[in-house]
Amino acid sequence: MIKFGVIGFGYWGPNVARNLDTLEDSKVVAICDKSPTARKRAQQAYPHVKITGDAAELVESPEIDAIAVVTPVWTHYELTKAALKHGKHVFVEKPFTSCVRQAEELVNLAEQKNLRIMVDHTFLFTGAVRKIRELVDAGSLGKLYYYDSTRVNLGLFQHDVNVVWDLAPHDLSILDYLIDKRPEAVVATGQTHLNGHEDVAYITLYFPDKIIAHVNVNWLSPVKVRTTFIGGEKKMVVWNDLEADEKIKIYDKGVHITSQQGVYNLLVNYRSGDMWAPRIQPGEALKQELQYFIECISENKQPFNDGVAGLRVVRMLEAATKSMQKRGELIEV
Amino acid sequence: MIKFGVIGFGYWGPNVARNLDTLEDSKVVAICDKSPTARKRAQQAYPHVKITGDAAELVESPEIDAIAVVTPVWTHYELTKAALKHGKHVFVEKPFTSCVRQAEELVNLAEQKNLRIMVDHTFLFTGAVRKIRELVDAGSLGKLYYYDSTRVNLGLFQHDVNVVWDLAPHDLSILDYLIDKRPEAVVATGQTHLNGHEDVAYITLYFPDKIIAHVNVNWLSPVKVRTTFIGGEKKMVVWNDLEADEKIKIYDKGVHITSQQGVYNLLVNYRSGDMWAPRIQPGEALKQELQYFIECISENKQPFNDGVAGLRVVRMLEAATKSMQKRGELIEV
Amino acid sequence: MIKFGVIGFGYWGPNVARNLDTLEDSKVVAICDKSPTARKRAQQAYPHVKITGDAAELVESPEIDAIAVVTPVWTHYELTKAALKHGKHVFVEKPFTSCVRQAEELVNLAEQKNLRIMVDHTFLFTGAVRKIRELVDAGSLGKLYYYDSTRVNLGLFQHDVNVVWDLAPHDLSILDYLIDKRPEAVVATGQTHLNGHEDVAYITLYFPDKIIAHVNVNWLSPVKVRTTFIGGEKKMVVWNDLEADEKIKIYDKGVHITSQQGVYNLLVNYRSGDMWAPRIQPGEALKQELQYFIECISENKQPFNDGVAGLRVVRMLEAATKSMQKRGELIEV
Amino acid sequence: MIKFGVIGFGYWGPNVARNLDTLEDSKVVAICDKSPTARKRAQQAYPHVKITGDAAELVESPEIDAIAVVTPVWTHYELTKAALKHGKHVFVEKPFTSCVRQAEELVNLAEQKNLRIMVDHTFLFTGAVRKIRELVDAGSLGKLYYYDSTRVNLGLFQHDVNVVWDLAPHDLSILDYLIDKRPEAVVATGQTHLNGHEDVAYITLYFPDKIIAHVNVNWLSPVKVRTTFIGGEKKMVVWNDLEADEKIKIYDKGVHITSQQGVYNLLVNYRSGDMWAPRIQPGEALKQELQYFIECISENKQPFNDGVAGLRVVRMLEAATKSMQKRGELIEV
Repeated sequence: MIKFGVIGFGYWGPNVARNLDTLEDSKVVAICDKSPTARKRAQQAYPHVKITGDAAELVESPEIDAIAVVTPVWTHYELTKAALKHGKHVFVEKPFTSCVRQAEELVNLAEQKNLRIMVDHTFLFTGAVRKIRELVDAGSLGKLYYYDSTRVNLGLFQHDVNVVWDLAPHDLSILDYLIDKRPEAVVATGQTHLNGHEDVAYITLYFPDKIIAHVNVNWLSPVKVRTTFIGGEKKMVVWNDLEADEKIKIYDKGVHITSQQGVYNLLVNYRSGDMWAPRIQPGEALKQELQYFIECISENKQPFNDGVAGLRVVRMLEAATKSMQKRGELIEV
Repeated sequence: MIKFGVIGFGYWGPNVARNLDTLEDSKVVAICDKSPTARKRAQQAYPHVKITGDAAELVESPEIDAIAVVTPVWTHYELTKAALKHGKHVFVEKPFTSCVRQAEELVNLAEQKNLRIMVDHTFLFTGAVRKIRELVDAGSLGKLYYYDSTRVNLGLFQHDVNVVWDLAPHDLSILDYLIDKRPEAVVATGQTHLNGHEDVAYITLYFPDKIIAHVNVNWLSPVKVRTTFIGGEKKMVVWNDLEADEKIKIYDKGVHITSQQGVYNLLVNYRSGDMWAPRIQPGEALKQELQYFIECISENKQPFNDGVAGLRVVRMLEAATKSMQKRGELIEV
Repeated sequence: MIKFGVIGFGYWGPNVARNLDTLEDSKVVAICDKSPTARKRAQQAYPHVKITGDAAELVESPEIDAIAVVTPVWTHYELTKAALKHGKHVFVEKPFTSCVRQAEELVNLAEQKNLRIMVDHTFLFTGAVRKIRELVDAGSLGKLYYYDSTRVNLGLFQHDVNVVWDLAPHDLSILDYLIDKRPEAVVATGQTHLNGHEDVAYITLYFPDKIIAHVNVNWLSPVKVRTTFIGGEKKMVVWNDLEADEKIKIYDKGVHITSQQGVYNLLVNYRSGDMWAPRIQPGEALKQELQYFIECISENKQPFNDGVAGLRVVRMLEAATKSMQKRGELIEV
Repeated sequence: MIKFGVIGFGYWGPNVARNLDTLEDSKVVAICDKSPTARKRAQQAYPHVKITGDAAELVESPEIDAIAVVTPVWTHYELTKAALKHGKHVFVEKPFTSCVRQAEELVNLAEQKNLRIMVDHTFLFTGAVRKIRELVDAGSLGKLYYYDSTRVNLGLFQHDVNVVWDLAPHDLSILDYLIDKRPEAVVATGQTHLNGHEDVAYITLYFPDKIIAHVNVNWLSPVKVRTTFIGGEKKMVVWNDLEADEKIKIYDKGVHITSQQGVYNLLVNYRSGDMWAPRIQPGEALKQELQYFIECISENKQPFNDGVAGLRVVRMLEAATKSMQKRGELIEV
C-alpha cells in the first residue's frame, strides 16, 4: 500500500486524489492546498484525511511514501526537489518544470536517491494514443513522414505561461512517445495579442530521416479543434479527439513515385483504399497512469514517462519559446 | 467585343475558353496547345475557332486583343512578355511568374505599353472571399489577430514546383486581398519526402500591427481540408470551403482582458454569442473574374488583381521557399 | 425550506438528490432504495441523511413535504398515489405512469388534495428547447408544417417497456410544449427483433391545421442520433442535441407558391437566406426544473409540466403502442 | 451497334444521350423533345443527329433498335407502349409508370414481343449500393433487422406527383434490390402543405421475417439529407450519400440477448467493435447501367432492373399513396 500526499486541490488535483484513493494499492493520507476554499472542498470529500495549507507537512511526513504535485508549473521544481530530498517518489503535473536546468537537477537527484519521478503526460495513457503507438510499433504506417497537430480553442488564458507551455506539452509528449528518434531542431513563430504572452503559436520540429512535426496552438480560436494528422508511407492516420466514437481513422492511402526519368517522366501513383476506425479501449487514462506509477514504485522500475521524458518535453518547450522570441530562428535541441 | 486567344487547353484552359466564349463582350478566336490531344478536344468544342500548336500565331495575330495564358508557371514569363510586346492585354494563371524579377519586368512592360495584366487569383471572386472582405471592410471583425489556413490533400504532385508554389498562392492572394497591410517577413519550414520538391510546408507571415498569418500546405494528407480561421477582436470567422452550404461561419466570440494589476490579477472575460452563416452569393467565380477583366480592358482601368498584386504573391512565394530551404530563416519581404 | 424524500437512487436519482440538496430552498431528508448497494452509495454521499429500503417510511413521514419518485415506470402509480394520500407534493420521473387510467386518477387525487405533481420532462428546461419555444412564441417560424425527430442508439434495452415508452416521451413532451394544439390521432409502426418488446418504432401524430409530427425511435442503431427538424412557413430549425456548441440552427429558407393557374403554371419560389445558430443558455436543466418545482410549491401555482401534461404524454404513448400493435391503425387521441 | 432514339432532352436526357453516344456498342441516331429550346441544345451537342419534336418519328423509325424514354412519368406508359409495339427495346426513367395496371400491361407486352425493358433505377449501379449488396450477399450483416432511410431537401416541388412518387422510388428500388423478400404490407402517413400534393411523407413497409423498412421523404427540409441505416444481427451499415469519400460505414456492433429467465433476468450484451469504410468503386452509375442494358439486348438476357422490378416499385408507390390518403391504413402489397 503506497501512501500518497497530494499537493494542489484545484482543477486537476481532485481527479488525482480520487484515483489514488480508489486504486487497490494506494491511498491518500494527506492533501495540501494554499486556498482555504480548496481545503474545505478536500475536507468534505475526504473527511478522514489530513488537510493542510503547508506543503512541508506532507513532504516531511515519515508516513508518506509518494507525493503528487498538482500545482502551477512555477512551483514544480521546489516542491519536487523537497519531496525527493525527503525520500518521496513524485508524480508531477506537466510540464515537468519551467526550464531545462531545473528538470536536469531533479532527474539527477532522483537518480542519486533511487526514487521514481513520473510526469503526468496523461494523453499517453488514452486508448487513442496507445492504439496509434501500436500501429507505429507494428510498422503498419510504414516510414513516418509527418505529425501535424492542431490544438486550438478560446482561452483559457494563463497568466504565467504562453500558449506553447499551456497547450503544446500534450503534442510534444505524444511526439516523443510515438517517434523513436529525437528532434534535431525547432523553429517556432507566434504572436502576442492580449496579455503579454504569446496566444498564437506554430512550432515545427525537424527530426532525423526527414520526419517533420508541426504543432498549431491558439487561445484565440472561435471553435475547439483537437486534430492530428500522421502521415506514413503505407498508411495515414487522422485522430480527432473531439469525436465521441471514431477518434482514430486509419487510411489506406499513399503516393508512390515509381520512376523519375527526367523531370517530365515522373510517374506518380496514388493509392486509395479502405478507411478503418479501430475500437478504442475505453477507461480513464489517469487511472491507468496512476496504476502504472504504483507498479513502478512497487517493482522499482523506471516509468517510460519519467523525469527524463519530462525533461525532453521541457527542452522542446524551451527551444520553441526561444525560437519564437527570435522570430523563427532555428534552435537546436 | 474583345477577341481572345487562349494559350493552354489542359485542365483549366477549357473553363477559361468557355467563359470567354459565352460572355457578352468577348469571344475566343484562337486556341493554342502543344499537345495534339488537347488540340483535338479544342477543335471538337470550338469547330469554328482557329486551333494551333504555335503560340506565336496567337501572340502576333493582329486580330487578337487579349491573350489568356493558361499554361504551367515556367512558361508564363515568356508568353506574357511576347503578348505584351505585341500589344495584347494578358490574363495569366497563378502564380504569375517563377520569380520576382520576371514579375517586375512584366509589370513594367505592361505599364509602358498601357496594357492590362490580370493574374487569375480566382478565389478572390468567390462568394465566400467577397463576403469575408465585406466583413473586414465594414469593420465587423474588429482589429485582425490572425489568418490561419490549412490546405491539404493527397497529391496532385507537380514535377516542376513544390507544394508552396502549388497550393499556397490561393491563401497568399486571399491574405493580400483581405489585409490592407503588407507582410514584413516570412518564416517557412517544410520537408521533401518523395520527388525532390517539398511536399509538406508551413508558412508564417508577420504583418504590421501584430497580425500573423499561417498557411499549412501538404500533398501527403489522407483527407482533403480547406479550412481557414480568421481571428479578430470583435468577431471570428471559420471558412470551410468544402461545405456545400454553410461555407462561412461568423462567431460572435472574443476575449477581453480588462485589467492587469500585477500578473495574478489579470481579469480575462470570454464573450460567447451567436454564430451566423451568411448566405453566400452563388455563381461561377471565374466567370465573374473574366467579366471584370473585360470591363477593365474596355474602361481602361487597373484590376485590383493586376500584375502588381501577382508580383506581391510571387514575392511571398519566393521568400517562403528561400526561408524553407534555410530551415526557417526569417526572410524580409 | 421544502424537505424532500427521494425514492430511487439508481442512475438518475443521485442527480435529483444532489440538486435538491444544493438548491437554496430545499433539502433532502431521506433517501430510499430497495438495493443495498444503492443505499450504501447514498449513505456515503449523504452521511447525515436517513437512508432506508422502505418507501413507506418516506411517504408517511410527517417531516417530509415532497417526494421525488425516481424509480421504474411500473412503480410510479403506487408510489405517487401513496405520497399524495399522505399530503406530499410529488416530482415523478417520465413517463408519468404506465397507462392513461392511472395518470387520470393521480391528477384527480392531486387536485382534490391541492397538491403539486411535476413530471420530470427535463428536456423542457434545456436551453435548446427553451430557445425553440421562444422562436415559436415570437412567431419567427411562421405557421408550423412539421416536427420530425430521430432519436436512435444502440440499446439500452429495457426489460419492462418497448422503445416507444423508453425514448419517445422526450419528443412527445417537447411536441406538447411547442405546439399549442393537441394531436388528433396517432399512427405507429414498429417491429420486435430481440426481447419481446418493439425495438424499432415510427410514430406519426396528426395535429389540427395540417401540422404533422413524426418520431423515429430505435434501440438497434449503430450510431447515436438526436436530431429534430422543425419546418415552418417562415423559418426552419435543425436541432442536433449531440453538437457541443451549435445545437440549434435556424434557416431562413422557405418555399412560396405564388400562383396556380392550372397545374402546369405552378410558380414555386425558393427562398434561401442566412443560417443562424443562437447561443444557447448554459446550465443544468434538471436544476432549473427542480428550482421551478420548489417555486410552484411555495407559491401554490400549477407547473406547466404538471400531471395533466404528463397525462397527455401517456395518452400519446398508449395510443402509439396500440396503433403499432395493430400495424398502423389510426388511433384517435 | 445498338442504335438509340432518345425521347426527352430536359435535365436527365442529356446524360443518357451522352453515355449512349460514347459507349462502344451503341450510338444515338435521333433525339426528340417537345421544347424548341431543348431541341436547340440537342442540335448543338449532336450536330449530326436527327432532332425532332415528334416522338412518333423515333418510335416508328426502322433504323432505331431501342428507345430511351426520359420524360415525365405520366408519359411513360404511352411512349413505352408505342415503342414496344414497333419492336423497340425500352430504357425508361423511374418511376416506371403512373400506376400498377399500366406497368403490368407493358411487362406483358414486352414479354410477348421478347423485348427488353430496363427501368432506370440508377442508384442500383452506384458503387455504394453494389457494395452494400455484396455485404448482404456475403452474409456479413447477418439476419436483417431494418432499413431506414431519410431522403429530404428543399423542393424541387413537382406539379404532377407527390413527394412519395418523386423521392421514394430510389429507396424502394434499393430495398427491392437488397432484400430478397417481397413486402407484405405498407403503412404511410403524410401531409400536404403547399400545392395540393403531399410534400412530407413517412412510409413503413412490413417484410417477412420481421424485417421492417422505413422511408422519410420531405420537400420542406432546410437541409439536404441522404442517409440510410441498415441494421443486421452481425453488422450495421450507415450510408451517407452526401459524403464525398466515406459514403458507407460498416459497424461491428450488435446486441445479443443471451437468456431470459423471467423478465428481470434478461441478459443484454452489447458488442462494439471497429468501424470500417470500404473504398467505393468510382465511376458513373448511369454509364454502367446503360452498358449493362446494351449487354442485355445483345445477349438477349433479362436485366435485374427490368419491367417486373419497375412494376414492384410502382406497386409499393401506389400502396403508399393509398395508405397515406387513408391516414395510415394498412395496404397489402
